[in-house]
Amino acid sequence: MFTVQLKFTHHHLQNPLSFILRAAQIYPDKISLIHTDVTNPVVYTFGIWAQRIQNLAYALIEAGIRPGDRVAVIAPNSPLIADAHHAIIAARAIITPINTRLKPQEVTYILEHSGSRLILVDYEYAHLAQSNKIPVIISNDTGRDGDPYESFLTDGRRFSEEKGWAGLDAEPDENAAAVLCYTSGTTGRPKGVVTTLRGSYLAAIANAFEAQMNQDSTYLWILPMFHAAGWTFPWANVFAFATQVTLRTVDYSYIWNHLLHSAVTHYCGAPTVQIGIYNHPLARRLPKPVTAIIAGAAPTPHLISELEKKGIKPVHVYGLTETYGPFTRNYEQASWAAMSLEDRARLMARQGHAFATAGEVRVVYVHGENEDRPLKDVPRDGKTLGEIVTRGNIVMKEYFRDPEATKKAFRGGSFRSGDLAVMHPDGSVAIMDRSKDIIISGGENASSLAIEQELASHPHVLEVSVVAREHPKWGERPMAFVILHPQHASHWHGRHHEFERDLKQHAKPRLPGFACPEWVEVVPELPKTSTGKILKTELRKVVAKL
Amino acid sequence: MFTVQLKFTHHHLQNPLSFILRAAQIYPDKISLIHTDVTNPVVYTFGIWAQRIQNLAYALIEAGIRPGDRVAVIAPNSPLIADAHHAIIAARAIITPINTRLKPQEVTYILEHSGSRLILVDYEYAHLAQSNKIPVIISNDTGRDGDPYESFLTDGRRFSEEKGWAGLDAEPDENAAAVLCYTSGTTGRPKGVVTTLRGSYLAAIANAFEAQMNQDSTYLWILPMFHAAGWTFPWANVFAFATQVTLRTVDYSYIWNHLLHSAVTHYCGAPTVQIGIYNHPLARRLPKPVTAIIAGAAPTPHLISELEKKGIKPVHVYGLTETYGPFTRNYEQASWAAMSLEDRARLMARQGHAFATAGEVRVVYVHGENEDRPLKDVPRDGKTLGEIVTRGNIVMKEYFRDPEATKKAFRGGSFRSGDLAVMHPDGSVAIMDRSKDIIISGGENASSLAIEQELASHPHVLEVSVVAREHPKWGERPMAFVILHPQHASHWHGRHHEFERDLKQHAKPRLPGFACPEWVEVVPELPKTSTGKILKTELRKVVAKL
Repeated sequence: MFTVQLKFTHHHLQNPLSFILRAAQIYPDKISLIHTDVTNPVVYTFGIWAQRIQNLAYALIEAGIRPGDRVAVIAPNSPLIADAHHAIIAARAIITPINTRLKPQEVTYILEHSGSRLILVDYEYAHLAQSNKIPVIISNDTGRDGDPYESFLTDGRRFSEEKGWAGLDAEPDENAAAVLCYTSGTTGRPKGVVTTLRGSYLAAIANAFEAQMNQDSTYLWILPMFHAAGWTFPWANVFAFATQVTLRTVDYSYIWNHLLHSAVTHYCGAPTVQIGIYNHPLARRLPKPVTAIIAGAAPTPHLISELEKKGIKPVHVYGLTETYGPFTRNYEQASWAAMSLEDRARLMARQGHAFATAGEVRVVYVHGENEDRPLKDVPRDGKTLGEIVTRGNIVMKEYFRDPEATKKAFRGGSFRSGDLAVMHPDGSVAIMDRSKDIIISGGENASSLAIEQELASHPHVLEVSVVAREHPKWGERPMAFVILHPQHASHWHGRHHEFERDLKQHAKPRLPGFACPEWVEVVPELPKTSTGKILKTELRKVVAKL
Repeated sequence: MFTVQLKFTHHHLQNPLSFILRAAQIYPDKISLIHTDVTNPVVYTFGIWAQRIQNLAYALIEAGIRPGDRVAVIAPNSPLIADAHHAIIAARAIITPINTRLKPQEVTYILEHSGSRLILVDYEYAHLAQSNKIPVIISNDTGRDGDPYESFLTDGRRFSEEKGWAGLDAEPDENAAAVLCYTSGTTGRPKGVVTTLRGSYLAAIANAFEAQMNQDSTYLWILPMFHAAGWTFPWANVFAFATQVTLRTVDYSYIWNHLLHSAVTHYCGAPTVQIGIYNHPLARRLPKPVTAIIAGAAPTPHLISELEKKGIKPVHVYGLTETYGPFTRNYEQASWAAMSLEDRARLMARQGHAFATAGEVRVVYVHGENEDRPLKDVPRDGKTLGEIVTRGNIVMKEYFRDPEATKKAFRGGSFRSGDLAVMHPDGSVAIMDRSKDIIISGGENASSLAIEQELASHPHVLEVSVVAREHPKWGERPMAFVILHPQHASHWHGRHHEFERDLKQHAKPRLPGFACPEWVEVVPELPKTSTGKILKTELRKVVAKL
């Protein structure tokens, strides 16, 4: 068996690889991975999966991968990328997951910047890995003989049969890099976020604990695993001995099929994904409670109510790629149960308090000029706008090969999230906006998020996004892009201008004058990142052309 | 607010003190501590309790306690000892809990050996702290003005009001000592087990996760907190935001009162305590499931069945003071559900696999002579007897001021538990005996534990303990001490010899000849440690006089 690396007899290194070794020991025959919505479905037990992971680790080493090397993975949610999260660490290399929706030149940039030594790629995205001189292993996602990925595993198998886990040395430094994950990069070049083994171990345990997962849980992969290493859930699920179901695409029929028939208990997703779930024709009340972990934007009252009607319990978390995914959580209070949905939703929209095993979260004054002076907390008044900063074990180590960006991100001694928030008297954090999303209207700071929340309370609004648009008199004014609720879209058909008036009147009593939208545009869809985050940069480009 | 100590921005020190700070932030108004079965009951919220802990930390510093100093605590389960587990760490000192059932000279030895600089003592045990020159703070366990302990807290309050958590520096080394806990010392002088902040942090998280505790949980303190720092539950409960109920004595009426009326969901206890629980006149089926974490001895089929009838789910764990309490757990498999109680109980009696966050557990050959050579695993055959050895984050750092004993305990590079076990083909560990409890009968090794398990299957046996007794022909032979089940005691009244014959006949088809008890003695009670472990040393003394 794999030998846990020790500094002393009373000290072993925190490494998320230990979870799969433990799971394979304790529940070898339990189903760990289900991948069924494909031509060649596969189901692996912990015992078999651990063996495949070991084979992959040996195959990587045999292919020349050395400690600290980067191994890129370009794949949808599937066994390939699930395997990679464990096996690359087992080979003491660094997993570099790449967003499948990037353009070829963006992928090339990441491959070059990361200095990846090998690419594991899914057949559907093989074109993204073509133009490079880096060795490529293609998976046809069949799990069968003849699949090049399976042949690669077979290469490794020779060694695993001979040496087993004992033949693999664990990384001797728990602060060594585990993952190199490139931020989606809504502006400028993507930056490579480096996370550690210790951080991944602790974040995974925290996610398993916060989600209250255990050996009876089944986790449905809706969130792409390539996004912030799937918020460490590739390891959290294994720590909890949960079963994972991988889905190549966010297909709501498949999702409902699994929710209804695969004993799913947990999934993660942005609000926009949640909307897709509760609005689907197959949607109905689930027989068993399901926990939905929501991040990317705050859940609205409507979203909370719709999910709860389906038996889905929303848990609101907040974080960034730089914080391994979730860093804060909205901790529901017993007293909220008696509140109206609106009041409860207002409290649930807050990003909340530091997560289990997270270190410190603060809201500090934003310093325009002299950004190196000590950070100062804003008062706990729920009003004063500041920047969210974080520190501790589940904050990234650095931006890869970018000491300048690293220095800037940690100026003042904490990680600067760039998210503007207030601190409520109860110590909970509530995001008002990304710093760049603030609208400066007549000299006033208008939070696009606050405007969106009020506009979303109009019963005919399905989704809304607000950005700044130049205004000759006020400098900037808010412009709202709205998707109408399908049930009401026909009502306003050919009368969008009337809806515009209606929505402006809805806003008037709810928002200060400077925050009321000057323009409203009804649109069929909104530009989004692969994780469902609305791309305001794209909307700003649209606005710039108006 | 208390500042988390950081080595880097992406690294904070693992310290269980962080749990109470987080709980007080997130759930300030939630009940954290209930102490009601006393003249002056008290109930504290997390907010108030955290403040009391802060006051105590400042009072300790004001009383001259410096980083690394030992502060002794002699108290039953009560707010005093619960406070101490957090406040002494906040003062960067080492908590030294002392078993309240020790004799004055034993307490004196521990106070001297530990070099304790201050004693926090409960009024009921004040005599144990009298003869010393160390300053003593007595608690009358009233929580009211006029109580010397409350006056002590008031001393600290002046500073906490002025400086708050920010005025307290956290220990900058996560491998610094957290607890110094003396082993019950069934033979020889008690040894001081030193555990670390990192280990306590990780063990507490593991216990919270394994017990599946959360903010809706209520933990009933039956296990004494002075025993192995209450298996880290003083911190695990806080990590999970659970409510704790402290009980000064193991009084089964109080226990049932809490089980029925205080929404208790979890408790820990040795089998003998569990027997007391299910045999009590108030015992009935509980309306909500309760989890009982059992260690100290394996649960018998009868015990499992009786607990399950009451709606209590037994979880079998194994560990020692040297492993922060639980280090392995019996992980129930889905396939067991269909088994007979006897078969299931046989599997549940195994000590199982390494706990969450525990490192490595092995069973290695016992070397009589040359104990320094490398450890070698016994085969996974469920038969070959070896010694359980452990390594990793939740193994003690050392025996305090005893390099010889430390060296001996870690010979071969792992902690030697002294427990003899086999390794089953599924990798689970099953204890056969303490090395000193093996009976060498006619040259054969007879496991006293295995004999006890077979004798316990006699329906009239409530509890049984087996020790070696000298035998002119066979060297040693097993002698059994039996407590009869109350329901059947009258049946055998005045006919103990007949029962003896009956039990021997019961044993015959179940045990090899050399393991059958040569003598059976019916007794009204068995000598036990404060945690309910049977004191075989006492039985051996009885046997020696026969």
